[in-house]
Amino acid sequence: MGAVTPTAVERVERVPKQDRSRATRQRLLEAAVACLAEHGWAGSTVSVVAERAGVSRGAAQHHFRTREDLFTAAVEYVAEERSTALRALFPDGPADRRAVVSALVDLFTGPLFRAALHLWVAASNEDQLRPRVTELEARVGRETHRIAVELLGADESRPGARETVQGFLDLARGLGLANLLTDDRARRERVVAQWATLLESALG
Amino acid sequence: MGAVTPTAVERVERVPKQDRSRATRQRLLEAAVACLAEHGWAGSTVSVVAERAGVSRGAAQHHFRTREDLFTAAVEYVAEERSTALRALFPDGPADRRAVVSALVDLFTGPLFRAALHLWVAASNEDQLRPRVTELEARVGRETHRIAVELLGADESRPGARETVQGFLDLARGLGLANLLTDDRARRERVVAQWATLLESALG
Repeated sequence: MGAVTPTAVERVERVPKQDRSRATRQRLLEAAVACLAEHGWAGSTVSVVAERAGVSRGAAQHHFRTREDLFTAAVEYVAEERSTALRALFPDGPADRRAVVSALVDLFTGPLFRAALHLWVAASNEDQLRPRVTELEARVGRETHRIAVELLGADESRPGARETVQGFLDLARGLGLANLLTDDRARRERVVAQWATLLESALG
Repeated sequence: MGAVTPTAVERVERVPKQDRSRATRQRLLEAAVACLAEHGWAGSTVSVVAERAGVSRGAAQHHFRTREDLFTAAVEYVAEERSTALRALFPDGPADRRAVVSALVDLFTGPLFRAALHLWVAASNEDQLRPRVTELEARVGRETHRIAVELLGADESRPGARETVQGFLDLARGLGLANLLTDDRARRERVVAQWATLLESALG
């Protein structure tokens, strides 16, 4: 087979330039989120991410001018990927509430939440990062709320329904935080089961 | 009055040595929490805290051998102070649930929560800090749960009551996180009012 299999360089050269640029960007964004989740803000520089993504530092800086650009774009990109994946899990809209509750809570316990948490906490002390992360958090938060309302089939015209969903997302965020240092899965599952029942009766 | 008022030095010298040592320790602990809340882990060193507390670096190191000693002791000390203050608010035990819910949520929105959050997030990436903070978090978490059960008058022998209280504390933690970058008070109050109603009906 050796003779007919293209080399890595040949394969790369056959991909149109624009697609390669998009693929590089995507690799950088994914590496940035993984890096934030594992090493925190202090350990996350453009160089570290470029190396992890297998991209030169120059190429990384071509895509993202500053460290702040790279990491806010990364958290936003992964959040969007997650939202898309979540909607794809329930393609027919409102679904079994227990399943939806579980899937929403899962959003807050993986590497994306961990990365976002590092970014939020760093932003709380860094003036350069703060306005951008605040704006990003608001945008991602609104989108998550929109998906939750839709998939839980909540009727927001009913008094208290909006706050019930908001509080549920705050609960999910708190469960994510509780999972930061220890594997909190067993406790979390019991809490989620109980509050899913309360949510069910509150949303009607 | 000038002649009969003792000078600062005279006042200090009249305080027994042991009390002065305790007062110094307390000043260091309070300065450490304020420092963590304002500057995060990266900006919090023993020197910075000593200066803030008006204590020499040598005296600070006499009380706390390492940076990890100082900051875990600080978060624990302030958490204990908060627990004591919380119990003092409701000296007769179980009280009006809305008032208790509000007071518990307040625990997660002040400088103590902010300081603890910085410590948790730093611990998630620093091996030296991680086991100590994990243990501290578990201890403080159990104490907060105990107070919540007591003041909410929850009967933990009833199925689901324990998870209801745990989930409420996770909600409070999530609300604390939502308050990190922006003043989230107005939204929080609406969420808390709604979830207090759900808690009320769940705890009976």
